[in-house]
Order: sequence, then structure tokens, then C-alpha cells
Amino acid sequence: MEQIENLHIPGYKIVQDKEKFCFGIDAVLLSSFARVHPNDSVMDLCTGNAIVPILMSAKNHCNFTALELQEDSIRMAKKSVELNHLEDRINVLQGDLKNVRELFAGAQYDVVTVNPPYMRADSRLNPNEAKNIARHEIFCSVNDVVWAAACLLKSGGSLFMIHRPERLSEIFRACFAEKMEPKRMRFVQSFSDSEPSMVLIEARKFAKADLKIEKPVVIYERKGVYSKEIESIYGR
Amino acid sequence: MEQIENLHIPGYKIVQDKEKFCFGIDAVLLSSFARVHPNDSVMDLCTGNAIVPILMSAKNHCNFTALELQEDSIRMAKKSVELNHLEDRINVLQGDLKNVRELFAGAQYDVVTVNPPYMRADSRLNPNEAKNIARHEIFCSVNDVVWAAACLLKSGGSLFMIHRPERLSEIFRACFAEKMEPKRMRFVQSFSDSEPSMVLIEARKFAKADLKIEKPVVIYERKGVYSKEIESIYGR
Repeated sequence: MEQIENLHIPGYKIVQDKEKFCFGIDAVLLSSFARVHPNDSVMDLCTGNAIVPILMSAKNHCNFTALELQEDSIRMAKKSVELNHLEDRINVLQGDLKNVRELFAGAQYDVVTVNPPYMRADSRLNPNEAKNIARHEIFCSVNDVVWAAACLLKSGGSLFMIHRPERLSEIFRACFAEKMEPKRMRFVQSFSDSEPSMVLIEARKFAKADLKIEKPVVIYERKGVYSKEIESIYGR
Repeated sequence: MEQIENLHIPGYKIVQDKEKFCFGIDAVLLSSFARVHPNDSVMDLCTGNAIVPILMSAKNHCNFTALELQEDSIRMAKKSVELNHLEDRINVLQGDLKNVRELFAGAQYDVVTVNPPYMRADSRLNPNEAKNIARHEIFCSVNDVVWAAACLLKSGGSLFMIHRPERLSEIFRACFAEKMEPKRMRFVQSFSDSEPSMVLIEARKFAKADLKIEKPVVIYERKGVYSKEIESIYGR
């Protein structure tokens, strides 16, 4: 069932359907990791209910495009954008990222953000299930995502992505194939002595090799208590 | 001046010349990160004074080959191996890793270890300085190192390397070019909230993509106090 929920940013709301897919801390981390400049043109791929551009719009004055494949998500994205009065800053579009070359011919975006499906496609899954489409690479693989970002970005433009550490080798391979150079990375760990569960990556189009690994994002200081960094991202 | 020093492992000694190059915590971390089986054939490239095979031989019954280019280091490596009575387990050889295809034709090593020069070659450096050769890619680049490992390893054999995080993109590129798949990685940080200063990597020949990022190695629990993991690596 679709519900309107308050975001952690005062006054901001989001429409989501818990039976389908809810945004998680990954969207929050991605929107905080991405670096944009005022008036940048920003494309969010696999946007779902447009949570990433909505969160980013609270702190950054950019022109956002939010691309999504699934009808249900598009409806929730549009409703969320309206609820937050962001119609003039976030443009929600339905489309397949595999068609970006035709959909956005000659595009020169400054920034692409994406919180893509993390898991490899698995033939046992039902491709009609919204959750599976959001989580598994049924309609787009990591190669498709990086290819689409490379098509959309201007030279020197940045892709900001969150993904799983075990996919890192495939992500690097995809980046190299599209001349997208990994420039900045942060691993996300539950505790300071945990292995990472997610990774934030910035890859820049046509840049030279020189990667900055920043200190890990540690989510919990101790069980049940967010770290200072997470508290500050959530604005508490 | 060459000196004999006691290692942290009781009874083990090393010869080194502080004016040239001393082994550091990187050699200790690499020898602890590398996974070997009894009777494996192990090649250590850029071996210096053979610190890595000497440390590894204390815990693993393998057949080590230690390859080094520089005459002075070869002399110290041989002396260190003799001092520890490891002549029948560590074979020190002088040679250039760029010639491994000829030097070790038909090689099928189980494991290659390497603590290579970390820094890009810089034309302002004097290539006759031992420290520069050990630290800078004057006589071998990361591409040369990964190529040599791929030549030496059997299918499914592993390269264990320690390097700088900012070189990771080049390391991945080199691995992909040689069909060496990054399988396991650990970042090394001074403190739990520091950015990483080193990275430990295992890459396996002809393996499929699936990377395990393990929890970071944190060196200090607090200023001046080693973490429990480092204490245990040093056997205290």
C-alpha cells in the first residue's frame, strides 16, 4: 500500500509502498556522498520514487532529471515531487536507461547519480515483481548503468554510485570499458570493526588514474546508536 | 651500515642497512595476509633482504624463491637466510622480474608475494640510489609486477600484494589485462576513523569476478597503542 512518510529533513515527504520497495540508508548515503555545484544538471538513474534527487534538492540548487522504468515507481516519484513542491527542479521521466543515447541525444550532464539493483540477475526470480526489479539486475546490469552514465555525462563529469563491495571488480571493469575513471571511494561498515556492506564510488569521465579512498562510513558507534557522522547526515 | 637485528619472532634475525631500506610494517602485514598451503611453491618478487619469505617461513612449510634485482640487497638476503638456517627452504636469486618468462620458463608457482615500489617513477630521482629503487617504480611498474606474477603462477594460483590505495585503479587495470582477478582485499588504517594508507590484495589467476572486502586492518587502538590484531600478528 502506498503511504506518505515524513523524511528526516523537516517538511520533506516521500511516497512509498512497503510491499514493493522502500528507500534505505543507501539512498541517504549516496545523496550525501555526491558532490554537485549550484545549477548543475544532475541525472538520477533507477530513481524509484525519486528519493535521491529529493534528498539532494534539500541541500543543492541543481536541475534534476529522475529516470525510472517501472510505472508504479514513476507514479510515486511524481507524487513525491509534487508533495515537496519540487516540480520546477526535478523532472521525472519514464524510460529505460538502455535507451539513454536516443532519449537524451547530445546530453552533457554534469553529474549522474545511481542506486542501482545490487544483485546479479537470477533466473529463478519472477521478473514481474517490483522488488526483484529494484534489487536484481533484471532490466539493467552494472555494465548498462556505467555505459548509460558515460553516455549522459560531459567530459570531466562525475558518476556517483552506491553498490556492494563484492561487485567492485565488475564495477571497475565496466568503468574502464567506458573510460570512466574511479576517483573516490568510501566503504560503508555497520561498526568500526565490521567488514564493509556497501561502497560509495565516484567515477569521472576521461579523468586520469588516481584514486582517493576516504575513511569508511561507520553507521553505528555501538549497537543501536548511530555514529556522529550518520547523526549529522540525518541532521540531528 | 649493515646490521643484524632481531625480528619479533623469537630466534629470527634480519640483516638490513638503515641508510638504504628497512623493512616496515608492510612486510609484516603482507606475510600475515598471504594464505599458503604446506609445500606450496612461493615466489617473492622485489624481495629486498628476503624479509617476507623469512617471516612466512616461520609459520608455513613452503618452498620459497626470493627474487631481487639489487646486488646489495641480494647479499643481505643471503646473509639473512643463512643466519636463520633457512637455506634449504628459501632460495635467493638475483634477477630482473621483467625477465621471469626466460628465468623461470614453464613455472607453475602456487603463490606469488610482492611488496613492490609504491610510488610512480619520477624523472627527478637518481636511479642509482637504493632507496629510490625500492620505493619508486624505476625498474618495475605495477604492470610489470602483475605481468610477472601472471607468468609465474599456475591457473588458480594467487598473487598477494601490498600497495597504496591511490594506485588501486591501476592495479585493477593491470590485473584485468593479465586475467588476474581481484578476490580479496583489506585496507590498512592507522586508526579506526582514519583513511587507509595501504591496501592488501589477493588476485587469482583465471578466477571469476567476486571480490571479498574484509574488515580493515586498524594499526593503533589509540595513539601509541597497537590494536589487538597487530599485537597478535607481532605475536605478543
